[in-house]
Amino acid sequence: MERKVVVLNVGDFVPEEAYADLFNYAEVVFYGRASPDELRRAEVLVTFRVTREDLQVMPNLRVVQVLSAGVDHLDWPSIPETVTVCNNAGSNAIPVAEHALALLLAAAKRITHYDARCRSGDFTRDRITKILYGSEVAVLGLGPIGMRVAELAKALGMRVRGFARRPREEPFIDEFFAYPDVRGALSGADFAVLALPLNKHTRGLIGYDELGAMKRDGVMVNVGRGGVVSKPDLIRFLRENPEFTYATDVFWSPEISQDSDIAALPNAIVTPWIAGAFGHPRVYVEMVRYAVSNVIRYLRGEGLRNVVDRSDYV
Amino acid sequence: MERKVVVLNVGDFVPEEAYADLFNYAEVVFYGRASPDELRRAEVLVTFRVTREDLQVMPNLRVVQVLSAGVDHLDWPSIPETVTVCNNAGSNAIPVAEHALALLLAAAKRITHYDARCRSGDFTRDRITKILYGSEVAVLGLGPIGMRVAELAKALGMRVRGFARRPREEPFIDEFFAYPDVRGALSGADFAVLALPLNKHTRGLIGYDELGAMKRDGVMVNVGRGGVVSKPDLIRFLRENPEFTYATDVFWSPEISQDSDIAALPNAIVTPWIAGAFGHPRVYVEMVRYAVSNVIRYLRGEGLRNVVDRSDYV
Repeated sequence: MERKVVVLNVGDFVPEEAYADLFNYAEVVFYGRASPDELRRAEVLVTFRVTREDLQVMPNLRVVQVLSAGVDHLDWPSIPETVTVCNNAGSNAIPVAEHALALLLAAAKRITHYDARCRSGDFTRDRITKILYGSEVAVLGLGPIGMRVAELAKALGMRVRGFARRPREEPFIDEFFAYPDVRGALSGADFAVLALPLNKHTRGLIGYDELGAMKRDGVMVNVGRGGVVSKPDLIRFLRENPEFTYATDVFWSPEISQDSDIAALPNAIVTPWIAGAFGHPRVYVEMVRYAVSNVIRYLRGEGLRNVVDRSDYV
Repeated sequence: MERKVVVLNVGDFVPEEAYADLFNYAEVVFYGRASPDELRRAEVLVTFRVTREDLQVMPNLRVVQVLSAGVDHLDWPSIPETVTVCNNAGSNAIPVAEHALALLLAAAKRITHYDARCRSGDFTRDRITKILYGSEVAVLGLGPIGMRVAELAKALGMRVRGFARRPREEPFIDEFFAYPDVRGALSGADFAVLALPLNKHTRGLIGYDELGAMKRDGVMVNVGRGGVVSKPDLIRFLRENPEFTYATDVFWSPEISQDSDIAALPNAIVTPWIAGAFGHPRVYVEMVRYAVSNVIRYLRGEGLRNVVDRSDYV
């Protein structure tokens, strides 16, 4: 039986150990070095993004395994319905959840505020800090990142509210709120962590009234996607509520510098889309390994995980 | 039987609920409003500090219950051996451990670094971040703060080394190092958290060679006392090792501004002695309540906890 062709578009610097297993199940070719015939026969593509041109030269494609957890950057209308798209949720949940906690604690303990003051020689204490133990956090989005955040929040002695599309019982969630009751989930909360995908259900989900549902000195952390929050509403809210903090690793524009207005606000804490431990040698290898393990499931005739519902995007 | 006299020097703003229990067991008088006769009869003093004058006007004092966890600020030679001093360790362990984690994560995820850069409009990524999961942390000092740090580190998936005076088994410690093997505890560690008291055994315990025992891109967090670290050694080490981070809430001089040379270093992260959630309404009440509960043990004839060994200080 002819082996199926898998195209890897993962970058030349990735060590072979990350995908070596695949050689047992398929004919593996590398994007950029594949012949027109290999591309024509390709059934699976592992990549960050897929272009219209890719789809034209790979007419027999059945599966696109994306390397990132989010798939909002794809050109969905160009992808035929015959192609199954899988995200890579779970591949970097641990570093992203740690980053969410780092942003939450930086806001709660006013680390950026006090470090900047002390650096300028001012050691006076002008702001009180928050205690996580006994406080209430709303975790919006209960994929692998949100669930890990919930687990860590529980270990810190917080009461955890969960918000997701479908109600479910989870060990680290004290109270569940189902879509679209985001205001219920945020009402009176000390902290919120946004770990939501960006799709037609979540775009602009957090507006002025949702921000206002939290405590006035609340902290909202975003490690999902910027577009889940209405930018004009957020800027207005942060200007009107100097005690509220928005701590984010994600933005609205593909070019982050276009969102520098947020970073300039005194009650924002900003990192430049690094939560997945950008540049860390272990992380990228893990992403490729995790993606490849799903492709192997497919090649072995087992069910794919992380299949994206295209109706969320088209 | 005449009731014993307890002098409270806790600040007028503390609500009575924090110490109301004491009325059932003793004659309670307030420092600054007590008569000379009441002071003369006083057997217990609850306070942050005790002066030579206090000791002269309270000749019958048997117990000084300090409100802080640390007792290094006391004028030990002036305190008679007949007076038992108790610290208040455990009273604010939760906020201090949370602050230690906030500093550790700020360093690991480079939150202060990136927030300052983004604030100035520079969104480029020049530093990789660390992943806590699977890393190794040395917790120096296993009182209530250190033990809480160890518990949280375990929840984050870290391997935990413990360092303390006496070897012991603890659920969140993977490997134990006994005083004075601090170099063994730090050797090759990614992270260290210092939660040690300052006494004659710990003063200057961390010098140039101890810092050098950790990974070159290590992170040392100090929420105990500044004097545990040799300041000249630390400054030299931080200048020579730009990838190493020292994140601290504690200092050497009573006036923090005299330690502004540390805060100015690019690889230091500094907060101005706020780890106990300075100014938080809940915290001070808890400290008083915890101290008073120990005094009640004494008045009921039960054993005092947190008795300080004066030979550690004199």
